[in-house]
Amino acid sequence: MRVDGKPYRTIWLADDGKTVEIIDQTRLPHEFVVVPLNSLADACTAIADMWVRGAPLIGATAAYGMALAMWGDASDQGVKAAYDRLYATRPTAVNLRWALDDLKAVLDPVPVPQRIEAAYARAAEICNEDVEICSSLGEHGAELIRAAWEKKGKPSLEDGGVNVLTHCNAGWLATVDWGTALAPIYKAHDAGIPVHVWVDETRPRNQGASLTAWELGQHGVPNTLIVDNVGGHLMQHGKVDLVITGTDRTTGTGDVCNKIGTYLKALAAHDNDVPFYVGLPSPTIDWTLTDGVQEIPIEERDASEVTVMTGRVADGSVQDVSIIPDGAKAANYAFDVTPRRLVTGLITERGVSEASPEGLTALFPEFAIPE
Amino acid sequence: MRVDGKPYRTIWLADDGKTVEIIDQTRLPHEFVVVPLNSLADACTAIADMWVRGAPLIGATAAYGMALAMWGDASDQGVKAAYDRLYATRPTAVNLRWALDDLKAVLDPVPVPQRIEAAYARAAEICNEDVEICSSLGEHGAELIRAAWEKKGKPSLEDGGVNVLTHCNAGWLATVDWGTALAPIYKAHDAGIPVHVWVDETRPRNQGASLTAWELGQHGVPNTLIVDNVGGHLMQHGKVDLVITGTDRTTGTGDVCNKIGTYLKALAAHDNDVPFYVGLPSPTIDWTLTDGVQEIPIEERDASEVTVMTGRVADGSVQDVSIIPDGAKAANYAFDVTPRRLVTGLITERGVSEASPEGLTALFPEFAIPE
Repeated sequence: MRVDGKPYRTIWLADDGKTVEIIDQTRLPHEFVVVPLNSLADACTAIADMWVRGAPLIGATAAYGMALAMWGDASDQGVKAAYDRLYATRPTAVNLRWALDDLKAVLDPVPVPQRIEAAYARAAEICNEDVEICSSLGEHGAELIRAAWEKKGKPSLEDGGVNVLTHCNAGWLATVDWGTALAPIYKAHDAGIPVHVWVDETRPRNQGASLTAWELGQHGVPNTLIVDNVGGHLMQHGKVDLVITGTDRTTGTGDVCNKIGTYLKALAAHDNDVPFYVGLPSPTIDWTLTDGVQEIPIEERDASEVTVMTGRVADGSVQDVSIIPDGAKAANYAFDVTPRRLVTGLITERGVSEASPEGLTALFPEFAIPE
Repeated sequence: MRVDGKPYRTIWLADDGKTVEIIDQTRLPHEFVVVPLNSLADACTAIADMWVRGAPLIGATAAYGMALAMWGDASDQGVKAAYDRLYATRPTAVNLRWALDDLKAVLDPVPVPQRIEAAYARAAEICNEDVEICSSLGEHGAELIRAAWEKKGKPSLEDGGVNVLTHCNAGWLATVDWGTALAPIYKAHDAGIPVHVWVDETRPRNQGASLTAWELGQHGVPNTLIVDNVGGHLMQHGKVDLVITGTDRTTGTGDVCNKIGTYLKALAAHDNDVPFYVGLPSPTIDWTLTDGVQEIPIEERDASEVTVMTGRVADGSVQDVSIIPDGAKAANYAFDVTPRRLVTGLITERGVSEASPEGLTALFPEFAIPE
């Protein structure tokens, strides 16, 4: 999507054909900094220090990390060592493992002198595949936004347009391009539909305020930041036409695990007859699970994410501030699960599915769970 | 309640019998500062600059402001001038108006030389009446906490105790003592019931993190700060036994207007069969309203409350930080309305009422709305 009018992906090959470039997302929204990755070590740092985040983008960075490693040591031992080093950066990230396995399988049968070329080619393919999935998901989702807008009588932006509420950041910054939850919004906006986005701040890490508001703003999509407490009130007063969130993991039965607080918005949507959709690239579906609330373990993260905020002070520098009493205790649950009964539909790259085993397996019959 | 082991109210008369002392709540939770009010001007500043906040405490401060004013000019003109100056500090605060009318009605018939004494006496009475209402409300609410604890088999704190979730600050800091939502918690704690409180941060003004966590901690009540997104997840997993919030205004039919985000917690409580109670001193009931969602106007406050956070930086100083992209737009709705169908009960100073016109008028027959 566009930054300052210029189209970007979140990861790309520099003109020298070797260097990989990324955006240091930890500096957003206050600074837009492009960082060159010149080595395996650089790629490891980028993932471990969260310069890149979002499952698809982590996978893409790991793939290019393997390619960068081949310049130093393209032997079987070198492939193995690069795999291990990259895997250790964020061992619980599913896409990281997947991308590394993919690259290793591609490289193993290739003669050593051709491994650099093969690795770059496969990394580029992985990026393009992600863009294709997100773009296709976006096209399907944009039709839902268009339908909601047409149902309202096609109001202009001045007359209210069509209003989407989103939570956290499932935008192009979390993928290679387009995003998941935000892909339908970009597609609708680019197609001339007057879409306005209510952006949940998304405490404690503030991805809505830091990333979603920033990327929508850069691409020119009208948006308004709200604290996480506000969505219910807006829905009670007809100010939200649909909700679209992303997901970290969705069961084969349609239960949606996503950033903490998603469940509360789904409840409010249900209580006010507002459709609640989830942008769901199919690799995020976990076909082994049936009951999300009971089966998905919820990560508890460090309390400092709750107790310390980062922002820009008057002199322009970025600082951390403590916002709680000395000695106070905080808990930090990272995700919650929205039961499928609250989900209107799942927007996938193959179309929009009902949040049910039947709906999902109709779109993805190759994954049908045997009776 | 206790601060550093010593019992405090939020406003009190100093030993000299003239000076009124308050806590500068804008300095919490980082600093506990007692401020003497020596004049009408001081009282006006305390209210206008929000050193004191919370409807009952604003009323009490205004009453003492009238008393302080009498030292300077106790004539009819002096009473009127003090009234006008105090009223202008926060003209939309219902309790401010109420306390000023009360003081004026008390002072008008009193001979000028006795007005200082009469004003101090009435201000003290207003404080004591507030404490009595909150204390009584607390006793009734504590029985609900006790019942929930007994139903669980009286677990010790180590075995889970009884868990109350609260939103915003309806604690002793918002009243003269005890609080409204927190009064039942203090009463239960003081009675030896092992109660633990989940404290919602309450964005955008963070009253949960700044005030509720602080005052519970000072009084020794176990508590854990969470971001506003977490409550639903906790309720899904049986970690909340009851929710108790305060209210800014409740309709005679039982709809509850309270700090933004309260409605989302009520939805989650309802979805998980967790009882949802509201601490409601009867002066907060607006008998003229029947449909809270439609009839109560919701204040929109300055967006800077969303976009700027205040906290303590590494060098110990307190600073403001901007947490959003330059130029991003934010909206700031201050309250929402929880429909009575989601409210299990209203805890008043006369007992616990069903959230319905019948329930409320049974407890307060003197306000029964004629058919």
